[in-house]
Amino acid sequence: MIKVKIHITLKPGVLDPQGKAVQESLNTLGYEQVLNARVGKYMELTLEEGTDVDQQVEEMCAKLLANPVIEDYEYTVEEGVTQ
Amino acid sequence: MIKVKIHITLKPGVLDPQGKAVQESLNTLGYEQVLNARVGKYMELTLEEGTDVDQQVEEMCAKLLANPVIEDYEYTVEEGVTQ
Repeated sequence: MIKVKIHITLKPGVLDPQGKAVQESLNTLGYEQVLNARVGKYMELTLEEGTDVDQQVEEMCAKLLANPVIEDYEYTVEEGVTQ
Repeated sequence: MIKVKIHITLKPGVLDPQGKAVQESLNTLGYEQVLNARVGKYMELTLEEGTDVDQQVEEMCAKLLANPVIEDYEYTVEEGVTQ
């Protein structure tokens, strides 16, 4: 099987209220050295062997997993995973 | 500045309805080779230099960012980031 790890992050200019909330909560808890926080998504997909992984994952990200208007995505592929 | 990249994932035995929804949506869209999907969180924190990063980040994850009952977390630290 093939394991794909996908990171989806907001594009640099896009406001991230969730990240801001995380940063402020950390500051409130006493972690004042936290200057900034950005929150994204992380997905692990398990695919059948023998598929054209790069093209498929690219399509899946663009169509469903990420919003290409405001989000960037990147992925790494691990082939031959046993579980 | 120090940049910390944090991955928060559900522990292996924990049901992941969001991941299940992603998998079923991908299958419905025609990507039948997707056998499983798990969804987690990805965060990037920017910290001031000179903090005891490992201990601080460990504490932040355990106290606020992750739920250690059902989630695992791991992080990587990049020192000397300019932006």
